[in-house]
Parts: sequence; C-alpha cells; structure tokens
Amino acid sequence: MTEPTVVPTAAPTAAPTGHLFGVGVGPGDPELLTFKARRVIGACDVVAHFAARNRPGNAWAIVEPLIEPHQRVLRLEYPVTTDAVERAGYEQAIAAFYDHAAEQVASELDTGCDVAVVCEGDPFFYGSYMYLHHRLAHRYPSTVVPGVTSVSAAAAAAGQPLVSLQESLTILPGVLAPDVLKEALAGVDAAVVMKVGRHLADVREALASAGLADQAWYVERASGAGERILPLADTDGVDAPYFSLVLVPGAGLAHRYPDRR
Amino acid sequence: MTEPTVVPTAAPTAAPTGHLFGVGVGPGDPELLTFKARRVIGACDVVAHFAARNRPGNAWAIVEPLIEPHQRVLRLEYPVTTDAVERAGYEQAIAAFYDHAAEQVASELDTGCDVAVVCEGDPFFYGSYMYLHHRLAHRYPSTVVPGVTSVSAAAAAAGQPLVSLQESLTILPGVLAPDVLKEALAGVDAAVVMKVGRHLADVREALASAGLADQAWYVERASGAGERILPLADTDGVDAPYFSLVLVPGAGLAHRYPDRR
Repeated sequence: MTEPTVVPTAAPTAAPTGHLFGVGVGPGDPELLTFKARRVIGACDVVAHFAARNRPGNAWAIVEPLIEPHQRVLRLEYPVTTDAVERAGYEQAIAAFYDHAAEQVASELDTGCDVAVVCEGDPFFYGSYMYLHHRLAHRYPSTVVPGVTSVSAAAAAAGQPLVSLQESLTILPGVLAPDVLKEALAGVDAAVVMKVGRHLADVREALASAGLADQAWYVERASGAGERILPLADTDGVDAPYFSLVLVPGAGLAHRYPDRR
Repeated sequence: MTEPTVVPTAAPTAAPTGHLFGVGVGPGDPELLTFKARRVIGACDVVAHFAARNRPGNAWAIVEPLIEPHQRVLRLEYPVTTDAVERAGYEQAIAAFYDHAAEQVASELDTGCDVAVVCEGDPFFYGSYMYLHHRLAHRYPSTVVPGVTSVSAAAAAAGQPLVSLQESLTILPGVLAPDVLKEALAGVDAAVVMKVGRHLADVREALASAGLADQAWYVERASGAGERILPLADTDGVDAPYFSLVLVPGAGLAHRYPDRR
C-alpha cells in the first residue's frame, strides 16, 4: 500500500518581471555600435530613449533603423532642451521627470516585458541611463552593455593618442566654475573637458593658464554627422554645441602627427 | 586646324602605399566588437597584433575567428612578458622592439597592402597601437577605429554608475609610486586605477587614506573569460593579474544597487 501523493498547495507566484538593459550605442557613427548592443536591442520588447523636446535624440538616430514592427518604442522626453540640463541645481529640478520616466519603464517591466534603454556613448559614463538605473536596479534584474565613448571617438577623429603608459587622464565636465577648472587642469598629464558648450572661452582660458592650450584640440560631434575638429587655439568665435569636448593629449606619444584640421 | 594634343610626359609615379588602421577590438567579450572594427579588419590585407611570448594575446583571441584564408597575420611578439612592460625604464629598453615592429608594418604598407593593427580596448587609451602610430602616422595615411575600454566594461560588470553630471573622473596607472597614487586620489569624485597587478596592496592603501576604500571595486578581466568582481575591501591575498583595475564610482548616483560580488 502506497502513501497518498501529497499535492502541495500552490503558493501564489508573482509573474516574473522583465529585464532592464542599459545599452550604450556609441558616440554617433552607427557603425560604432557593438554586436552585443545590436543583439540586446533586437531581443527586447520595448526600446526606450531620452530625447530633448523637438529633437529626435542622438541615440535614437542610431537605433531607429534597427527597430522591428513588433517592438514598442518609449520616448522619454525632457521637459526642456539638453542645454539646460547642465545648469547648476537643474538636476534636482528634473528629479520628478526622472521619477516619472522610471515608473513608465517599471510598468513595462512589471508586465514581464524586457526593456532596452538606449544611451549615446557608454551608459555609466555621464549617460542618461544612470538616472533610471539609480531608481530601478534595486527593484529589477539589470544588465549594462558598455559602449564606445565620445572621448575615444574624439581622440580617434583628431588622430591624437590620448594617454599612454605611466600618464594619468583627468576627465572634467565643462560646467565647472572657471576657477575650479583652472585648478583641476593645473599639472595634468592628459585631460578631456566634456560638454563644453557655452563654456568654451572658460575652458580655453583655464588651459592657457595651465600652459596646455597649444596642444589641445576641440572636437564637435565626434564620429557623427557634422563632426568638426579644430586646434583649440583656432576656436575664437566658435559657437560650441553641448556635445563638444576639448582633448589635451598626453605628451608621451602625442607629437609628430599630420595636422587633421 | 586644331592644335596638336600635348601629351604630358608621365612623371615617375610612386605606387600608392597601403593604409594603416589602428583598430580597437574592445575589452574582451568578442560581442563588444563594433561593426566598424569588424568591417575594417575584414577589408585589410594584413592583420597585425602584439602578443607576449607564449601567450595568444588578448586582442588576437577576439580577432582570430574573423580571419579569412586570403589574409595574412603579422604577430608582433614582445621580447618579454606583459608584466615586465610596466617596469620603470622598460619603455626605453623596448624602443628597439617597437622600431622593428613599425618597420615590419611599414614593409607591408610600402607594397600597397592595408594593415589593421588590432588592439584590446581602445587604441588611443593606453593601447599598444600608439607605439606604431607614433612611428608611422606621419609617413602613411592612418585611421583609428575607437573601441570599448576596459573601464566601461568594468563599470558595467560591477553594475556601478561611474561618473555623472558635474563629477570628474581621474584615471591613473597602478604603476605610480605609492605616495604619488595617494596624492592623486585625495579628493577625487570618481577614479579608476588601471593595470593594478602587483600594486594591489598599494592601491588599497592609497584609497584607504583617501577615505574611498569602502566604495571601491576590484575588477579582473572585465567582460572576458575569467571575469572577477570583488569589493576592494575583500581583496586581501588576491593575486591580481596585469589586466585588473580598481573602480571608485562617483557618489552622485552610486548607491542603492544590489551587491554583485
């Protein structure tokens, strides 16, 4: 005589949530996408991207041709233009926007959909994805796909080796106060000033007082449409866009190259 | 009556030389190759790579499966192992090796062959390609294809946003003298110490005196086979390989994530 089979009472099982992906799509040239980014974007139910009002969004321009008819697109539109994002104190002011964006993504994850949040450059290097990661990575499984940064693309475009062997590299946002910039750039081996925009004159002055202005390069929209490369010394009167940067290559291997201006 | 056609005497034309490409193949995961790197590698007559003696070479492991029968491979073998490359003064000692490697590549370019020099990570970010670029870029047309760095791969692997909005990022080689490391790490927003290797204890001590040891992560072979991620505090007794690094994520968006150790 056998024991009766005990059928355990089914516990109420939560439906599995979706997986959150932060996907770096590179600096602008669609060919600088990685195979992994392409695969992950193609495998997700929803593709989300940030964009400024009335602009397509840099990441979106790279990704749009890859979207298949069965995929849904979630456009997360900033309440103002990108240029305003850098203003001091603005970060707090748009916290509510990021909160709302995170909840939109969470709603998709809650129904079991995988979401790829695409992001220009590399997600964890000044990327907008970080604001969602901060709000969601403790609630959902997440994976970040690293991407080629605008720093690497700018050095390649300028043909300037950036940092070698025993040199250090200092990366700063252009929004820093002029005296902070000056202090931070004094005595660097190699440096990059990101998101130069309307701070170009301050950056030029800070590098001049560090004795580095003559070896610095200005790069606008590295690898993308409208890429422009100039010696920093020739940028008087240039109206720098938000996505521009200044490179100070390390001295070690930085000389003897043909001028690409 | 028409003027006789003047046929200009043909000037002795130099045969066109080949094009030199420095190609970043990413941090280790073959899927982190870009479409551009893949295309350029496939289009070159010769694929060159550096490697330590008795080792396949990290870049080569990624690229080997892509090589077609009609392509030639130029292995540029260091006279000693990678670990010795970081020793102070070694750079000068192997200048003759790089000179010879450059001439091997130049011989191919002189016959009109295009050469792709493949390089782990990004060519202009501590990449071995820089030594050839330094010797050849003023003599031949050259193009660099940027790649995903080990820094981006390590932050992604650890799930740690590295640097956001108004933060700065300081990148240092672990080979720096302990007191230089300490001074450079004091007061940073975010930092990465590259090529930690046998300097791990010094790096831990420098970060401890900067008050940053508890938020730092140790990452070995980011994205590649044998990837390992540990809180820096748990690395006592770890035998760090040359390709290991320590991340100090910026505080801005760095908290609240699940522990990936």
